[in-house]
Amino acid sequence: MKLIDGKKIAEQIKTEIALKVKELTAGDKRPPHLAAILVGNDPASETYVASKARACKEVGFDSSTYKFESDISEPELLRTVEFLNNDPEIDGFIVQLPLPDHIDEQKIIQAVNPHKDVDGFHPENVGRMTIGLPAYISATPNGIMEMLRRAKINTTGKHCVVLGRSNIVGRPVSILMSAATEPGNTTVTVCHSKTSGLKEITKQADILIVAIGKQEFVNAEMVKDGVVVIDVGIHRIESSRTKSGFKLVGDVKFDEVSEKASYISPVPGGVGPMTIVSLLQNTLKAYQNLIYS
Amino acid sequence: MKLIDGKKIAEQIKTEIALKVKELTAGDKRPPHLAAILVGNDPASETYVASKARACKEVGFDSSTYKFESDISEPELLRTVEFLNNDPEIDGFIVQLPLPDHIDEQKIIQAVNPHKDVDGFHPENVGRMTIGLPAYISATPNGIMEMLRRAKINTTGKHCVVLGRSNIVGRPVSILMSAATEPGNTTVTVCHSKTSGLKEITKQADILIVAIGKQEFVNAEMVKDGVVVIDVGIHRIESSRTKSGFKLVGDVKFDEVSEKASYISPVPGGVGPMTIVSLLQNTLKAYQNLIYS
Repeated sequence: MKLIDGKKIAEQIKTEIALKVKELTAGDKRPPHLAAILVGNDPASETYVASKARACKEVGFDSSTYKFESDISEPELLRTVEFLNNDPEIDGFIVQLPLPDHIDEQKIIQAVNPHKDVDGFHPENVGRMTIGLPAYISATPNGIMEMLRRAKINTTGKHCVVLGRSNIVGRPVSILMSAATEPGNTTVTVCHSKTSGLKEITKQADILIVAIGKQEFVNAEMVKDGVVVIDVGIHRIESSRTKSGFKLVGDVKFDEVSEKASYISPVPGGVGPMTIVSLLQNTLKAYQNLIYS
Repeated sequence: MKLIDGKKIAEQIKTEIALKVKELTAGDKRPPHLAAILVGNDPASETYVASKARACKEVGFDSSTYKFESDISEPELLRTVEFLNNDPEIDGFIVQLPLPDHIDEQKIIQAVNPHKDVDGFHPENVGRMTIGLPAYISATPNGIMEMLRRAKINTTGKHCVVLGRSNIVGRPVSILMSAATEPGNTTVTVCHSKTSGLKEITKQADILIVAIGKQEFVNAEMVKDGVVVIDVGIHRIESSRTKSGFKLVGDVKFDEVSEKASYISPVPGGVGPMTIVSLLQNTLKAYQNLIYS
């Protein structure tokens, strides 16, 4: 079994981005700039936005955070989006989700200029990805594709089973994995809560991408020998064996599945570290005008 | 075996649309208006645009055709698109494809206002469909979903195998069939030219949607008893048994597959008649502002 080490791959990509930024900003061109809109005080959101700012610094990007109280009105938030859409010194920005209940998330997402939508959530970017045009691809599916590419997994002609059909993971990764690209070109089966005979399907998988949000759901009986497993889940559970009293696990029973797998991504240290890197990659593409040109 | 009679379903839907138009135009409100841009003299395109105009007349829509020689320049065509985007009396319009080689089709498609894009080809509509927002869905996938709905096929929890991953049929119908809707909610497997072990996969299908563009490709050995088959292919082949000397066949060997199927759509008279009806349905939605509201 080989580990697909997301943490290591992410570090490698950051090094490459940092080099590219140096190259592109030779002379005195300004560096790429990623902005984030953060509403309210959700600790997970605050942590995530802070990690983004830190990652920007590591690779030589500028970053800025537009922070608002949770009682900001929808029109006020829309004005901020509009301001960032029009600021020529900001290449891309994200609106950290979730937003407070009184704000229509889809309305905000759709107000972001698709050219600056480095989260890849605007329908225009989703549509471009779906039909195979250059697009900002959202962080997790992009990270998964990058992991498969860097781990040199041959995908063409393989059977890829995706567990989960969410808009942020299962749906886009299923589209990318069946596109006429490498990685890609797999026969893809998408499973979800209404799927019957799940085990018979997952056992057919050469590549299994698990984004079902159920702690340690996939066990050894559900996979065949030699399967490649990408585990997107992340759950914090109590543990008497760690100092902190908890540990992180994925959607896959790592100990038993890893014994049958040819490659597997761990949790933590798998897909997680790839997501912020995806955002940096998209911001670099925005800076270089590589998507909409 | 029951036939899914696309011709009959299409007639039924046209009757419903005509009634709705009467209702909506009571008083003296103008009827829905569908326009088409036609470039050059491709006979198939001319026939298709003429059928659209005829279908509009049948249901009480206005229609108009903007016809250009094949040497029209791209900027000139873009100006026409812009004109139609801004004409408040035109609810929706299509640009008949293919366009001459010197014109960038994607550029034209993306110039169409998504609100009037009744062909559902603009990335914004594709993206909205992908993430489950209201969208103009393109003619063939919409027609297939309507056939399954009207034939009262229970789809939830079934295994749907889609042969083909094209942007106009396989890809969108695979997304719609795995969405959390009815029809929909199936476990979907998308197969394509790189798929290996095809027969083992198609034999698992409860519902088989064939859009592979290969004449009579699917035979009885590839399906299981009781399968529901939707045949999207259409091929004109020579025949000594018809007066014209040719006949139309699909991607499925109808005679032998129909003996095992519980439901099957024929060619001709299956998916074909549904496509123009889908366009009428989208135009009616545009007139009523049902998608972008």
